[in-house]
Amino acid sequence: MTKSQQIHSATILDAARRISPHINRTPVLTSATIDRLLNAQIFLKCENFQKVGAFKARGATNAVLSLDESQLLHGVATHSSGNHAQALSWAASLKNVRAYIVMPSNSSKIKVEAVRDYGGIITFCEPTLEARETTLAGILEKTGAIEVHPYNNEKVIAGQATAALELIREIQHLDIIMAPVGGGGLLSGTSLSVHYFLPQGKVIAVEPEQANDAYLSFINRKLIPSENPDTIADGLRTSLGSITYPIIQKHVHSIVTVSEESIVKSMRYIWERMKIMIEPSSAVPFAALMEGKIETAGKRIGIIISGGNVDLDDLPWMKNG
Amino acid sequence: MTKSQQIHSATILDAARRISPHINRTPVLTSATIDRLLNAQIFLKCENFQKVGAFKARGATNAVLSLDESQLLHGVATHSSGNHAQALSWAASLKNVRAYIVMPSNSSKIKVEAVRDYGGIITFCEPTLEARETTLAGILEKTGAIEVHPYNNEKVIAGQATAALELIREIQHLDIIMAPVGGGGLLSGTSLSVHYFLPQGKVIAVEPEQANDAYLSFINRKLIPSENPDTIADGLRTSLGSITYPIIQKHVHSIVTVSEESIVKSMRYIWERMKIMIEPSSAVPFAALMEGKIETAGKRIGIIISGGNVDLDDLPWMKNG
Repeated sequence: MTKSQQIHSATILDAARRISPHINRTPVLTSATIDRLLNAQIFLKCENFQKVGAFKARGATNAVLSLDESQLLHGVATHSSGNHAQALSWAASLKNVRAYIVMPSNSSKIKVEAVRDYGGIITFCEPTLEARETTLAGILEKTGAIEVHPYNNEKVIAGQATAALELIREIQHLDIIMAPVGGGGLLSGTSLSVHYFLPQGKVIAVEPEQANDAYLSFINRKLIPSENPDTIADGLRTSLGSITYPIIQKHVHSIVTVSEESIVKSMRYIWERMKIMIEPSSAVPFAALMEGKIETAGKRIGIIISGGNVDLDDLPWMKNG
Repeated sequence: MTKSQQIHSATILDAARRISPHINRTPVLTSATIDRLLNAQIFLKCENFQKVGAFKARGATNAVLSLDESQLLHGVATHSSGNHAQALSWAASLKNVRAYIVMPSNSSKIKVEAVRDYGGIITFCEPTLEARETTLAGILEKTGAIEVHPYNNEKVIAGQATAALELIREIQHLDIIMAPVGGGGLLSGTSLSVHYFLPQGKVIAVEPEQANDAYLSFINRKLIPSENPDTIADGLRTSLGSITYPIIQKHVHSIVTVSEESIVKSMRYIWERMKIMIEPSSAVPFAALMEGKIETAGKRIGIIISGGNVDLDDLPWMKNG
């Protein structure tokens, strides 16, 4: 028995009910050009249009709203490279409680500013998992705040699962749902929603080659963390956790990896063709389709577009100019 | 009696029926942050998600589909600084006919490439109205193609009017509908749709200060063309036409102007907050709200977001870096 087996279908449905008054029901967009290119039907679940610009609003809101008043008294705390930091700060503001945020020093400027705008109290640390955890432990001890981990938390996972739940309810007969994988919160939630609500569907995860801990863990059937990986997909630099890994091992069909060049090209392609802003992490699943790594012919494929928080002064193609 | 009086409500409803199998029904997006900022309810009709990335697909499609086979035999032709050029090339391809496109030599690279991709046959000319018209006249004589003017054409105006028609049908009780104004095709169509289908609503047009021919024409109550104006809003460099001007004079409530700086700031603000790509011309109405030029308190305001065709290697804020 793993802890993950405690996330039932009812847990996800409860999360959906709990968070729906606060979050956006994001649109699902399609493109005739992309469908022709891939000889498939592609449905983009646009969590870049979610509150705080990323799916992370779902998990953080579910976690915060699941705590009672006495638990919230000393606030909440987390470590995050960006979107979860914004999400927890925003979710805490819904309940008027403090959010203590540990951020790695290489977090993008726009994400740091957004956390401040939402009222998060930031402490910077070295960009390693160890430094994040040590710094956070100190804050938890000092303040009495409750930790809301960015992904290794069942309430967070159940919250993230609601994106795929909405997609499955809106778009009938999907064959495949794709999601990027970093710490695995979105992926484990997605795979549980597919397991419960689209049992004939497959979940295919995609990861940057340069941050392939989930891929290595999956094929070796054991949790293999990565050490400070370097990828432009800044949301995917974290490693799987003890709760997300077993769910992924059990419910995900396969994990494929993509190159950095392909991530940037795919990101730009989506911007130009779809007229939507997506962040590099969001382009990772589409990059696998562009690289021909997944059989698409005639398939109906949903993709969770994870977020749209990008620094417009620091776009990846500017560096190539 | 002006020619404009020939565009009845039935003309617009016919256009909507004619083009609906081919064009996108674009979404209407909102933002809680923007609504708080302006103390209003703002509804963005996202024609940046339209075919060819702009509302121009509506007018061009209505014009092409209104011609019979014998009229289409020698193709269609136009002059356009960009989006209409793409739109007519694309609309012509629906009927497998040729599209001859006269483009000013300062058209953005991405728009020139897109016209080529849709199969348009391009002839470049100097960036003046006179050069466009002379070059086009030569092509019409040589090929026997039928001209589809970018805005001074009733079928085009009726097509553009369908964007506001969709917005009015989807969002109840709008107080104001805003649109940018260049040649006036979108604005005259929008004002006719509001006249027929939202009779208690006001149309407020917005124009760059540096291309203020519509503003000057409107307050002086006579058509005053501009000469080669310089604005970043490249879709709005053209002057009103003999058909669009009288409709605008009759049905538009007011025209306000905005600075170049404000257009760029507003464009970037929409990108960052809404995660959608809009072109400079599309940011012009929102810029008027940001400049406080329109009373917004408690109002329900629809804005036609005209297009999203932007060169990602040449963003306006890169020049300030």
